[in-house]
Amino acid sequence: MTEFISKIRTIQWIDNYSRMVDQTLFPYEFKYVDIKTGQEMFDAIKNMIVRGAPAIGIAGAHGVVLFAQELIDLPHDEFIKKLIEKADYMATSRPTAVNLMWAVEKQKDVIKNSKSDVKGIIEELKQNAIKLENEDININKKIGDFGAEIVPKGATILTHCNAGALATVGYGTALGVVRSAFAKDNTIQVFADETRPRQQGARITTLELTMDGIPTTLITDGMCSYFMKKGMIDMVVVGADRIAANGDTANKIGTYTVAIAAKYHNIPFYIAAPLSTIDTSIKTGEEIPIEERSHDEVTHINGKSICAEGVNIINPGFDVTPHELITGIITEVGILKPDFKTSIANAAKMY
Amino acid sequence: MTEFISKIRTIQWIDNYSRMVDQTLFPYEFKYVDIKTGQEMFDAIKNMIVRGAPAIGIAGAHGVVLFAQELIDLPHDEFIKKLIEKADYMATSRPTAVNLMWAVEKQKDVIKNSKSDVKGIIEELKQNAIKLENEDININKKIGDFGAEIVPKGATILTHCNAGALATVGYGTALGVVRSAFAKDNTIQVFADETRPRQQGARITTLELTMDGIPTTLITDGMCSYFMKKGMIDMVVVGADRIAANGDTANKIGTYTVAIAAKYHNIPFYIAAPLSTIDTSIKTGEEIPIEERSHDEVTHINGKSICAEGVNIINPGFDVTPHELITGIITEVGILKPDFKTSIANAAKMY
Repeated sequence: MTEFISKIRTIQWIDNYSRMVDQTLFPYEFKYVDIKTGQEMFDAIKNMIVRGAPAIGIAGAHGVVLFAQELIDLPHDEFIKKLIEKADYMATSRPTAVNLMWAVEKQKDVIKNSKSDVKGIIEELKQNAIKLENEDININKKIGDFGAEIVPKGATILTHCNAGALATVGYGTALGVVRSAFAKDNTIQVFADETRPRQQGARITTLELTMDGIPTTLITDGMCSYFMKKGMIDMVVVGADRIAANGDTANKIGTYTVAIAAKYHNIPFYIAAPLSTIDTSIKTGEEIPIEERSHDEVTHINGKSICAEGVNIINPGFDVTPHELITGIITEVGILKPDFKTSIANAAKMY
Repeated sequence: MTEFISKIRTIQWIDNYSRMVDQTLFPYEFKYVDIKTGQEMFDAIKNMIVRGAPAIGIAGAHGVVLFAQELIDLPHDEFIKKLIEKADYMATSRPTAVNLMWAVEKQKDVIKNSKSDVKGIIEELKQNAIKLENEDININKKIGDFGAEIVPKGATILTHCNAGALATVGYGTALGVVRSAFAKDNTIQVFADETRPRQQGARITTLELTMDGIPTTLITDGMCSYFMKKGMIDMVVVGADRIAANGDTANKIGTYTVAIAAKYHNIPFYIAAPLSTIDTSIKTGEEIPIEERSHDEVTHINGKSICAEGVNIINPGFDVTPHELITGIITEVGILKPDFKTSIANAAKMY
């Protein structure tokens, strides 16, 4: 790995296919994979070759282009009808992160509003996908800059999962805040939760941050309270997969536990996410669908079982942190504060 | 594994050596290992071939016998002097669980009070070790029976780490409560935290409970709050490594996080431990020494790294749950309730 993570693009449209960093291979290998069909993209999202709410948004947008390319020989009206179906299918590849549905909707808007022929629509879909990619990085830098303003000098920031460059097109949301803060003050440091079952914190966040020279301590998920009590954590910053109109926030399983621990120790707990993660169509976190994932993710690590046969497994991929545990939501238009119902409604208007 | 776990003895004195179940091999292999020298016992405790506060207490008592056997040729006074030194050394094999120091002190009392010659002292130490073994099982059954009285019908009990038959001579403390409750009501079930870094919940608790036919669901450490919020956890019962005079309790790292989550959801949180786990010589949990363990336990699973090179690690083996988060302490003389200062002092008098 000769490139610094902060310089790479996690996912990028190239000519007529999508190129992405295969996230299932971290920390052992850094490899690009080219996705050339819509179904391949559906599977890449489902199997977490691409993961992270903003990145799977872009992946969904690319997936619609790939499906469109496959339907190029259809007559215009049939093309539109089929492609909308395929786009809706693409949006079902993972249920929790709303960025996926959001990006697919952006592509559906292009399809529905275009005055072009089939080829023209495909070209417009490509251009829109590339626009969304570029916007993602710009948005993350804005999130980073707003977030950096509230990071105390020399702070230790705890994060959960990976809301980094590798969860977005580049720069990151929660880790974008870390990057912007570190650029101003190189005495800050990060504690990274391992984030079982998929270990995105251990496998991806430690890699991403150490490659960028940001001091990082890996801890197991149960340890957060120990370090909070010792006064070793100054703030928590995590990403999000979906934010309800009242501020309730779905994020990687385990986030809610960290939020409760932060509250108990009076440590500020921030969400860092683009406005596209906000779903004002739902009132509270109760309505956010929580993905149930494969039992193997809990029972096996690196292909080897870690438990008795015959044990039951429930594997929710996400949990919901209620708004009362959240200090603020760092977005590209500024930091939303309680009462979130009002601040989110106002931000949505600017959007 | 043809024996039911609840029937086996985790550690047992045989003739002139100690036989124990090698706990590092779970869940892959069930193997006894015979420990024949004092230094081997020191290493077996340190490397967690034997683990669990009550079990390492017995291991420490066995270790003193092993050292005594090695010193058999010394003249009486020199034997006593050397053996006390070796006993003190044995007590340093792990720092947090007070049962180890307690059992070694019990053996030192035998050494100091004996009127016998060297051979006689060694015989008395053996008999005392065997007595402690048998007492451990009886104590655990009493803990189990007191605990079973407060388990609601059909309850789901969350536990962390392994405070089971395999953490004691037999039957278990927290899992002793589960066993006694299940014997009365076979509709109860257990949720077991994986318990990173050493995964005693996944590797040992799931094995122990499924072998006994007790329905068990394995969850990752970050998931507890998710299931608590869903109303799927009725109570938490965990073991302990040391309990201060005010009720503050050291237990496996991650316990404190579970306790905070339980408090947030108004779920009762119980400690199950023998009185030998109480250390009235210290006032609060602040004074309990917390063992720092090898970085490999965090960075590697089954011998394979799970994170970037160059990441920092801090690996505390235990944390302290403050008494205000504890609903009760289930002991062999009954359930101690707040104010713990008083209830612990009264229990200590009965001891």
